[in-house]
Amino acid sequence: MNAHAWTRELQVGEGFRLADVDPESKPGFSGGKAEGARALAAGLDDLNELQERLFAESRAGVAKDAVLLVLQAMDSAGKGGIVRHVVGGVDPQGVSLTAFKAPTDEERSHDFLWRIAKRLPEPGFIGVFDRSHYEDVLIGRVRGLAAPEEIEGRYAAINQFEADAAASGIRIVKVMLHISRDEQKERLMERLERPDKHWKYNPGDVDERLLWDEYMAAYQTVFERTSTEVAPWHVVPANAKWYARLAVQELLLAALEDIDPQWPKADFDVAAEKKRLAAS
Amino acid sequence: MNAHAWTRELQVGEGFRLADVDPESKPGFSGGKAEGARALAAGLDDLNELQERLFAESRAGVAKDAVLLVLQAMDSAGKGGIVRHVVGGVDPQGVSLTAFKAPTDEERSHDFLWRIAKRLPEPGFIGVFDRSHYEDVLIGRVRGLAAPEEIEGRYAAINQFEADAAASGIRIVKVMLHISRDEQKERLMERLERPDKHWKYNPGDVDERLLWDEYMAAYQTVFERTSTEVAPWHVVPANAKWYARLAVQELLLAALEDIDPQWPKADFDVAAEKKRLAAS
Repeated sequence: MNAHAWTRELQVGEGFRLADVDPESKPGFSGGKAEGARALAAGLDDLNELQERLFAESRAGVAKDAVLLVLQAMDSAGKGGIVRHVVGGVDPQGVSLTAFKAPTDEERSHDFLWRIAKRLPEPGFIGVFDRSHYEDVLIGRVRGLAAPEEIEGRYAAINQFEADAAASGIRIVKVMLHISRDEQKERLMERLERPDKHWKYNPGDVDERLLWDEYMAAYQTVFERTSTEVAPWHVVPANAKWYARLAVQELLLAALEDIDPQWPKADFDVAAEKKRLAAS
Repeated sequence: MNAHAWTRELQVGEGFRLADVDPESKPGFSGGKAEGARALAAGLDDLNELQERLFAESRAGVAKDAVLLVLQAMDSAGKGGIVRHVVGGVDPQGVSLTAFKAPTDEERSHDFLWRIAKRLPEPGFIGVFDRSHYEDVLIGRVRGLAAPEEIEGRYAAINQFEADAAASGIRIVKVMLHISRDEQKERLMERLERPDKHWKYNPGDVDERLLWDEYMAAYQTVFERTSTEVAPWHVVPANAKWYARLAVQELLLAALEDIDPQWPKADFDVAAEKKRLAAS
């Protein structure tokens, strides 16, 4: 198993300023792209073993813990690539993935955390949120989708919600994939240039892009208000996709190693079962 | 793209007899294990492209079709391996996987198809059922969990349910992974011999194994009563895992090619968006 200490550098702490993070940087990792690819492949084996142990605990009914990866980012920052290339590397049986869209009428009629709570991972699972309750204090704030007092109250509600989830055994890994404005322009332009990528483009992406500074300010506030000890934020520079994938994999590995799942002990008499099976 | 005609040989038709299928056989595929592995890797690229097109249609709101893979088998026949190595090869964002367990009290209070209907894949998705409504006419019959008249009525209910699902655009791919009794004994014994596999073993597995012939008879009836034109059964010899995985991948490819998903056309003015983006 690797040591994942270097991911500490990604953690949002006291005095953090998003504006100081260079989206091109690769904090904690000194290798290049090829080395990163090798590290990703090697880490995948560890991830698979840990995930299988965790899942085994759930099947044996002894799992208490789960992992929840929360992914937030501006459009085209690479959430889909993380899901495909990091999460997609483990057994789908042990993954519960939710892509949150604009809330439906029914969801809107409830508290903003109602639909989120329903999708928290069961013990033994790796849950992944592609967007999350943080949309309610990001686009919610930037677009004025709720009154300022309402938005204000949400930070505390989120902290309480996450503290409860953590207390129930969920390791919460919150990640913002951070790309530069120029990098986003390039990626969106590529989508426009390739007919097989048009489906990934939405004119609304440019509307949001025009509010870049407002979004960065909203993220800064999110980090200040909701990066807690039990559910810290990590800002992952994401101009280099390979680095972002490696970093998120490392964060998942660290969470799973913290759980330290064990192969469940047999709750039956192994010798007796061997005899019974041999005779069958 | 490959031609998948050889999977026709796996289809249950008039006069089919399960007892005549050799679980060691590899119908339609003349290569060996190494060739099978190469074919699986090559097919995965096709599967990924087709799946992404299908998913793109769903994102663009123009998807009408979906795929549903129904997996049934005796214990240890390799359902998990299919999920891991075939389904696990495609983007998890486009897959909706359900592992059906013994029904809960709430589920039991409804018709047996109630919980199934809720998990049918949305347009644009590949749904996978690890076990399914067929448990209700397999273990349901072998263990007498419902009255014979009730079981009897279920075949017609299933056919109607599947006909409706097919009419709504779902390509239903029903697969029974067929292993021999001896192969099962070996696989279960391996689970008993390896502490890291104990969690996969359940003493109940041997209880079911002792009813092997009853299960085979129940499967035979299932095939006779529910292999329909819109939702035919396929019996996949599964003593060789590599063959079973390849065959299921081919069946999925055939279903996706039948849908023939296309990259959605842009519903915006590409040139105008390029200008708007460039200026942003």
